[in-house]
Amino acid sequence: MTSSETQPDFDVQLRNAIDSKTKPLGSLGRIEELAFSLGTIYRNLTPRITNPRMLVFAGNHGITESGVSAFPSEVTAQMVLNFISGGAAINVLCRTFGIDLEIVNAGVEFDFPSHSDLVDEPIAASTKNFHLEPAMTAEQVQSAITLGRRRVQAAVDGGSNFILLGEMGIGNTSSAAAITARVTQTSIGVCTGRGTGLTDESLAHKTQVLAEALARHESAVSPLDVLATFGGFEIAAMVGAILQSKELGIPVMVDGYITTSAALIAAGIDATSREVMVFSHRSQEPGHLIALQHLHAYELLNLDLRLGEGSGAALAFPLAKAATEILCDMATFDAAQVSGAIDSAHE
Amino acid sequence: MTSSETQPDFDVQLRNAIDSKTKPLGSLGRIEELAFSLGTIYRNLTPRITNPRMLVFAGNHGITESGVSAFPSEVTAQMVLNFISGGAAINVLCRTFGIDLEIVNAGVEFDFPSHSDLVDEPIAASTKNFHLEPAMTAEQVQSAITLGRRRVQAAVDGGSNFILLGEMGIGNTSSAAAITARVTQTSIGVCTGRGTGLTDESLAHKTQVLAEALARHESAVSPLDVLATFGGFEIAAMVGAILQSKELGIPVMVDGYITTSAALIAAGIDATSREVMVFSHRSQEPGHLIALQHLHAYELLNLDLRLGEGSGAALAFPLAKAATEILCDMATFDAAQVSGAIDSAHE
Repeated sequence: MTSSETQPDFDVQLRNAIDSKTKPLGSLGRIEELAFSLGTIYRNLTPRITNPRMLVFAGNHGITESGVSAFPSEVTAQMVLNFISGGAAINVLCRTFGIDLEIVNAGVEFDFPSHSDLVDEPIAASTKNFHLEPAMTAEQVQSAITLGRRRVQAAVDGGSNFILLGEMGIGNTSSAAAITARVTQTSIGVCTGRGTGLTDESLAHKTQVLAEALARHESAVSPLDVLATFGGFEIAAMVGAILQSKELGIPVMVDGYITTSAALIAAGIDATSREVMVFSHRSQEPGHLIALQHLHAYELLNLDLRLGEGSGAALAFPLAKAATEILCDMATFDAAQVSGAIDSAHE
Repeated sequence: MTSSETQPDFDVQLRNAIDSKTKPLGSLGRIEELAFSLGTIYRNLTPRITNPRMLVFAGNHGITESGVSAFPSEVTAQMVLNFISGGAAINVLCRTFGIDLEIVNAGVEFDFPSHSDLVDEPIAASTKNFHLEPAMTAEQVQSAITLGRRRVQAAVDGGSNFILLGEMGIGNTSSAAAITARVTQTSIGVCTGRGTGLTDESLAHKTQVLAEALARHESAVSPLDVLATFGGFEIAAMVGAILQSKELGIPVMVDGYITTSAALIAAGIDATSREVMVFSHRSQEPGHLIALQHLHAYELLNLDLRLGEGSGAALAFPLAKAATEILCDMATFDAAQVSGAIDSAHE
C-alpha cells in the first residue's frame, strides 16, 4: 500500500493467483477471501507466516466494585498465574497450534514471580471505577498504548510476522460494552451481556450501572477519551498493539468482544489500521456483533465462545495458516494440466 | 458404549472433567460440545488423536453424460494425478495440519502411475448413467463398501485413531442431491445446487435430469438400493469407511454435501454409526443443510466452501485437535487455585 499507482496491479495479480489454483472458481469460499486479505496485508503473492505470537494483556478493573461480574476481581491475578504455569485454555491452544505466548501484566496489582513468558509492567494497580470517575488518565492511556506497541515491536524483532491478541480482566466486558455503545451510538441494553455468567438479576444491575456511567461521562466522545473513560489498561495496550501492527504491515488476529472494542478505538484513532485486522470469531456476547458490524467485519468462526484470553483468535489461526499455505503451495491449472470449466455443459 | 449400565457414569465423569477446567462454565461453547463428543466416542476422559488420516475416494459418474456438471468427466482422473503430485488444496491442507493423506481410486478408468499415497482398486471404469439405469449393481456396491472398510482398517492398523473423509468425482453433487432428496423426502429442486459452478440454465437442466431420474427409480427406497441407484463408487466406499469407523469406535470427520450423503446412507444402514460422525462444515450447496438437519448435525465451520476433496474436514480438524488437547492438558480450578464464580456479584 506504499503507492496508489502500484496497488491496483498487485490486487489484480493476487486475485489471478488465487483464481488460477486447481479448484472451481471461488470454491474455497471465505478461505479465498482470507488469502486475499493476508496477501494484501503482506503485499506478497506467496506470504508465509513465521513465529506467530499471541499477546495476552491483563488488567484489573475498578468497575468490579459496582458488582458487574460473576467472578471476584482476584481472579485476574489468579489467571495470570495459571497462564504462566501453562494450565489455561490459551496455553493449550497456543501449544496445539505452534503459537508463541506472551503474557503482559498491563495493570494488575500482584507480586508475580518472574517468568520468561511474563512481561510484568503494570501501569497501575487497577483502573478507577468508571461508574464514578474516568477509568484512566490520559497519561496512563498513552503509557498503556506504548506498552502494547513495544510488545508487537519486540515480537517482530524476534522474527514474528503475525500477531494474535487476547486479554484477561475481570469486569472488562463492562468496558467493552460501554466503549461499543458510545462508539457505535447503540443503546447500552443491546451492548451488555452476561460476561463470565451473570444471572438475569445481575445482568439488569450491570446494564443499570453502565447506563449511569455513560450518562455521567456524556462528554467522552473522541476515541482517546472513550478509551480513557471506559477502557482498561489491557484494552489500551491492545489499541497500541493494533496501531503498531499497522505501522509494521503485519496482520493482527482480533479475538472476542473486548479485543474488538480495542479495534473500535484503534480504527477511530487511525482508520487505516482496519486494513491489518483479521476477525477470528463472533462471541456469545450480544454487543460483539454490533462492534463487528461497525467495523464491516465478518468473523471466521461462530462457536459460541465467551472465554476471552485470545481463545477465539488461537482457534482461528489454523485458517490463516491454511490460507497462506494455499497461496504458496497449491498448483495452478496450467502447471497441473487440469482442464478448466466447460461452457454450459448440458447436451 | 459397551454397557448401558456404565454409560451414564462415564458421561457424568466426562461432563465434570470439562466443567472443572479453569474457565467460566460453558465458555468454550461448541469446543466443549466437541470435546464431549470425542471423549464419548473414545470412551476416554483424556483422549489423544494419533496419526489422523484423510481418505479421499475418487470415482467417475455416468450421469455426466446427461450434462449435469460444469467440468468434463476427465477432470476426475486429472485431479487424482494432481493429488498424487501434491498440488491440490487437500494436499496443502493435510500438510499444514499434519494429516496423512491417502487417495483411493474407487472407480476411475485411468492408467495411474503407482504411488505410495494411491490405492488403485477401481470397482469399475465409471458408474452407469442413473438418468437411465441404476448407477451400480448390488455386488459393486458391496465391493465398494468393503474397499472403504479396508482403508479405515489399514489406517487404524497403521496407528491412526481419527479418520477424515473426502471425495473427488465430477458429477457427484448430482448423486448427493438425488440421495438427499430420496432419503429425506425433500423436493429435488431444493436439494440441487450449482456444483462446481453451473449457470442458471445448466442448473435448471440438472434439476430436470435429477427429477426424471428420481421418478424413473421410484422403487429405490432402502438405503442400499438408494446407494446403488443414485450413488457412486466413492460414495459407497465412504459408507463403508463410516461403518468401519463405528465398528472400531473412532471418530470420522465428515466433509461436505457428497460425504454427508454417504453419512445419510450409513445412518440408514446402521443408525448407531451416527455416534462416531463429526460434521466439519456447511457447504454452499443448498441441499447440504437439509442432509445435516436430517442427521441432527450441527457443523463446526461455515465458510461457504464448495470444493470437496475433504477440504472442509481438513479445515475443521484443528478444532478437534484443540478439543482433545483441552481434555488432556487444561488445568482444573482446584489444581490452579483459581476462585470460582461468586453468587450474584452486585452489591
